[in-house]
Amino acid sequence: MTDRLAFLGPAGSYCEQAAVAYSSNTELVPFAGIPAVVTSVDQGLADEAIVPIENSLEGSVTFTLDLLIHQTDLKIKYEVVVPIEHCLLVDGDLGAADIEAVYSHPQGLAQCRAYLTKNMPEASHVASLSTSGAVEDMRNSPVPAAAISSLRAAQLYGARVLEQGIEDGHNNQTRFVVLANQDEGRTGTDKTSICFDFQSDAPGMLHEALGELASRNINLVKIESRPDRQSLGRYVFLIDMEGHREDRDVSAALGALKAASSMFKVLGSYPMSVNSVVK
Amino acid sequence: MTDRLAFLGPAGSYCEQAAVAYSSNTELVPFAGIPAVVTSVDQGLADEAIVPIENSLEGSVTFTLDLLIHQTDLKIKYEVVVPIEHCLLVDGDLGAADIEAVYSHPQGLAQCRAYLTKNMPEASHVASLSTSGAVEDMRNSPVPAAAISSLRAAQLYGARVLEQGIEDGHNNQTRFVVLANQDEGRTGTDKTSICFDFQSDAPGMLHEALGELASRNINLVKIESRPDRQSLGRYVFLIDMEGHREDRDVSAALGALKAASSMFKVLGSYPMSVNSVVK
Repeated sequence: MTDRLAFLGPAGSYCEQAAVAYSSNTELVPFAGIPAVVTSVDQGLADEAIVPIENSLEGSVTFTLDLLIHQTDLKIKYEVVVPIEHCLLVDGDLGAADIEAVYSHPQGLAQCRAYLTKNMPEASHVASLSTSGAVEDMRNSPVPAAAISSLRAAQLYGARVLEQGIEDGHNNQTRFVVLANQDEGRTGTDKTSICFDFQSDAPGMLHEALGELASRNINLVKIESRPDRQSLGRYVFLIDMEGHREDRDVSAALGALKAASSMFKVLGSYPMSVNSVVK
Repeated sequence: MTDRLAFLGPAGSYCEQAAVAYSSNTELVPFAGIPAVVTSVDQGLADEAIVPIENSLEGSVTFTLDLLIHQTDLKIKYEVVVPIEHCLLVDGDLGAADIEAVYSHPQGLAQCRAYLTKNMPEASHVASLSTSGAVEDMRNSPVPAAAISSLRAAQLYGARVLEQGIEDGHNNQTRFVVLANQDEGRTGTDKTSICFDFQSDAPGMLHEALGELASRNINLVKIESRPDRQSLGRYVFLIDMEGHREDRDVSAALGALKAASSMFKVLGSYPMSVNSVVK
């Protein structure tokens, strides 16, 4: 059990909901921005950190992926899936027709794009650092404004809910990961995340790499490519697979992948959330 | 040759630079927002459309990918790679220490994250619809503000360049694609883009799919996964490969992939930009 858990604040964020779902008797410490949440552990301001990594509508939180690839040695030790229900929040008796600006985290704005286009096509979209921070930004707006945030944020900050469930897709869920200095031990239903790249561009290298999993009947849960940040057209691959890095088959596959790749990093093994894979 | 080419405006955007590089004797028609650029062709407001699809630092423009997967039947017929050099623009004699807000397209803000964190850690980041639109947003800002935009935008709108080349990586390039009702014929050095998904989650399905390319010695240029927008943990894969869809090997591979997949769509074949793949 951790003592202090850093999360993407302020209070009322979906990340706070994920933090509570992970551990109910922990001191939750809010930080503004994903980098600040992650570096808080290295700085000794927290023991563990929880950050969003993937949304069912918008895809990976590339910011978090790039941090894991390039900037931190923390390991993934747990994953939590939280359902997202966005609300349109206002102050006072403002109606939809009055709204000239809508504040939210860019992911929140993106997830409600169709709703905003249909209902307030003229309103400008303004980025906030978090969905919960959007409420304060709305209050500081120079024009009549609304915020896209959670029901909990509405209650916490005393805003009025103009409409509930305004996200474009009905299966809006976000997956969060808990980062710590060590990943988790075997539980029997685990996932392992890795990243790697290749020095050369020989055709079929990725095919051969995936063959190391397929030949051992290891299920590929997710594959993603990210730019290597050196050149357009060169990528780092991120793979989530079923199994723990200490499982015999997974361990053998990781060894083979490491031998075939240029950069190779195990991001962690952790218990698989029952909600993280829909069969 | 096209008559009217829709681009992500306003004038001065990197997308306009890409449009000029594609075709110098075409009427360029600016639209605000990637969806408006793409739908302009269906609405008869333009004959072709040019949109950003990938940046060497930030990765895919997921907005464009999702449009290609879910919302348009336009085909990719050309690709253009444009080097990106961001400038910090201000009005009057404002200095870096005075800046309280920085306006840009979210990709522009993301590409200059390290610079902003180091040089103006207290400034808030505000999203604009485009890098060129950020200059006007900066001028309407309630607090002393700067814009991240191009040198061309500075000249066009008469803003002062406080610093040039402020992006975090030295190889900042964006790849744009031209969309039209038909893709391009064979040139001999072509690329083909497809997307597909699988109905079942059997281990190794993606490995087998990539095997259809590897066994024919077709080079995989890029692979990307996007959420299928139905459930967390289910994905649509996007693949760019070398060759034209009418090449015998590519045609055979596409047939095999189509037979193995649930949804399958050819996004187009087009001449490969010499800058799009760094060997």
